[in-house]
Amino acid sequence: MTGFRLEGGGGGASGARAGVLETAHGPVKTPVFMPVGTQGSVKGVSPRELREVGAQIILGNTYHLHLRPGEETIGLAGGLHSFMGWDGPILTDSGGYQVFSLAKLRKVSDEGVHFRSHIDGSERFLSPEKAIDIQLVLGSDILMVLDECPPSEADRAAIERAVERTRAWAARCRERAGRLAPGYGLFGIVQGGVHADLRRQSAQALVEIGFEGYAIGGLGLGEPRERMLEAVEATTSVLPPDRPRYFMGLGTPAEIVEVIARGVDMFDCVLPTRLGRHGTALTGQGAVVVRNARYARDFGPLEAGCACYACRNFTRAYIRHLIVAGEILGLLLCTHHNLHFLLRLTAEAREAILEDRFPAWSRSLAR
Amino acid sequence: MTGFRLEGGGGGASGARAGVLETAHGPVKTPVFMPVGTQGSVKGVSPRELREVGAQIILGNTYHLHLRPGEETIGLAGGLHSFMGWDGPILTDSGGYQVFSLAKLRKVSDEGVHFRSHIDGSERFLSPEKAIDIQLVLGSDILMVLDECPPSEADRAAIERAVERTRAWAARCRERAGRLAPGYGLFGIVQGGVHADLRRQSAQALVEIGFEGYAIGGLGLGEPRERMLEAVEATTSVLPPDRPRYFMGLGTPAEIVEVIARGVDMFDCVLPTRLGRHGTALTGQGAVVVRNARYARDFGPLEAGCACYACRNFTRAYIRHLIVAGEILGLLLCTHHNLHFLLRLTAEAREAILEDRFPAWSRSLAR
Repeated sequence: MTGFRLEGGGGGASGARAGVLETAHGPVKTPVFMPVGTQGSVKGVSPRELREVGAQIILGNTYHLHLRPGEETIGLAGGLHSFMGWDGPILTDSGGYQVFSLAKLRKVSDEGVHFRSHIDGSERFLSPEKAIDIQLVLGSDILMVLDECPPSEADRAAIERAVERTRAWAARCRERAGRLAPGYGLFGIVQGGVHADLRRQSAQALVEIGFEGYAIGGLGLGEPRERMLEAVEATTSVLPPDRPRYFMGLGTPAEIVEVIARGVDMFDCVLPTRLGRHGTALTGQGAVVVRNARYARDFGPLEAGCACYACRNFTRAYIRHLIVAGEILGLLLCTHHNLHFLLRLTAEAREAILEDRFPAWSRSLAR
Repeated sequence: MTGFRLEGGGGGASGARAGVLETAHGPVKTPVFMPVGTQGSVKGVSPRELREVGAQIILGNTYHLHLRPGEETIGLAGGLHSFMGWDGPILTDSGGYQVFSLAKLRKVSDEGVHFRSHIDGSERFLSPEKAIDIQLVLGSDILMVLDECPPSEADRAAIERAVERTRAWAARCRERAGRLAPGYGLFGIVQGGVHADLRRQSAQALVEIGFEGYAIGGLGLGEPRERMLEAVEATTSVLPPDRPRYFMGLGTPAEIVEVIARGVDMFDCVLPTRLGRHGTALTGQGAVVVRNARYARDFGPLEAGCACYACRNFTRAYIRHLIVAGEILGLLLCTHHNLHFLLRLTAEAREAILEDRFPAWSRSLAR
């Protein structure tokens, strides 16, 4: 199993925590942002660039990799690390969220989910056991349980049913995975929408099963920020302090900082790569839409003071020209910068926590 | 002016030459392949990657950069080197070829070319003097004269007229550029289609004007290889041995080797980047269409024995997966490899020439 050691925070004026997650492919210092490599590639970034921008751990996705190229191929390559040339830790999402958001003609039962591939329409079946089996073939450092993720507009009754099914599936995942080798862990996923009591109930049920870490799913899907934060607080109030906590799919820099303040350790989001592909740069002063004509003769970097390769070597004027001219390098440079930005943000949060100045640091950020 | 020093070859069993071209941004060892950065970016490759794959000098394009972002913007950035973050030598094509192949509603007169931008339809005018003025603002190490490039199917009379107009324009370019500072050079462009006598006539006329180097234009456009090679030989027979020779827009690896054997020193082509963007890898055994299903579980590199980043770290199976899944990294890795392949080819040709074994080396290549 993975180890987790708290090094600072977790009490006093803020709930923000700094820790170290020990995995089979090295330690992960938290809080941490995890770049998303859904299909076995963080879009537009090579593994060596991931290291350069400060990535410690990346995500893969069980649903996508199962459909294409298939876990058999990845297994023959020696696992996902070897297949994609990344020797750091990998966390794989179970595919639950993707089955419920991407796949067609779903039929959900207690047994699992029948669905059709969004790629070729082929009939597929995913169960808790199969989700674990696939992730074991992928060789993930951190496996996720299969969960049922209800749509954000679901009513309370539907969310209650999802909480119960997620609990039952989590128990079956735990059973299937058994006791994992040192450095490998299985995380449970807390559901419950924005209902504090359901969040507590879901978290409590998962803690009773016992996981190496706990994820918060089904939030950050458009609900009001206050309700999202309340749901996070309800969840973390139940979770054991000695296990890592992972908010799935958050989000903006400001949201990540607010959730760090509430004791969550791990984050992932497609925002930096997606914005980068659309030619938008994240900065401490807000997003910069580099395509705008106002940057045509702006010979400053994407973000003043940034130490990334893009900012050290290229101007907004040049990157704007590349984007307007349809040159791929423009999007690559924006993506590179955005990943560096979010990874620096969580690294700075960690420093602030360790130096006992997180509240002041977070207040100093522009919103 | 640029200096050029022959270091080997140029006689004996082969006309292949090895030399050094001295430019304001450093020496260029020839024979050399020059990656094409039409719009101020070699497609899909950062400047540091260009260095990594062995690029010594790259191309920019006067026509494209004049239309977008405009030479004023690049001038404000401190020139093209500074604008695009490449501190090595840059050769800029004059835009003649692009005006005749891309622009709309051309009206050619002795004065110059009236045309409409292929981007926004705006009315533009390019003259020999203006082509030089733009390239001086760009700060190119090597400037090219404005030439008239007739279509490959043009009859002899049309080619004769193009030869004469190209000569007259070349004289005006030489006049406008004057005597350039050390490390900067202006190259003339030989036209004449596949007619040996017109090639000799065009080359002779340009030599009389006097340039720091001579380019061969209007070939490699679909004519039979034998006729192309005859036209090259007719051209080089007239050119002075102490000036560099540049074949514009060639081509396949095999063609480049054949033209090196005929005493040409410099090459450019969009082939490696274009093939890379389409997921095809150049290898010593021919082109590999990585998308093909046969590579789905091929865990060897794009090319066995290749030392490039893509081949050292990734398999055909992985790169095929990336291409099939629409992941941009797949195209980036193919592009990276293809540039490395062609740059290694010309570097190996140079070594063979210096070691007096070029004929044996060229015979050893798979065709």
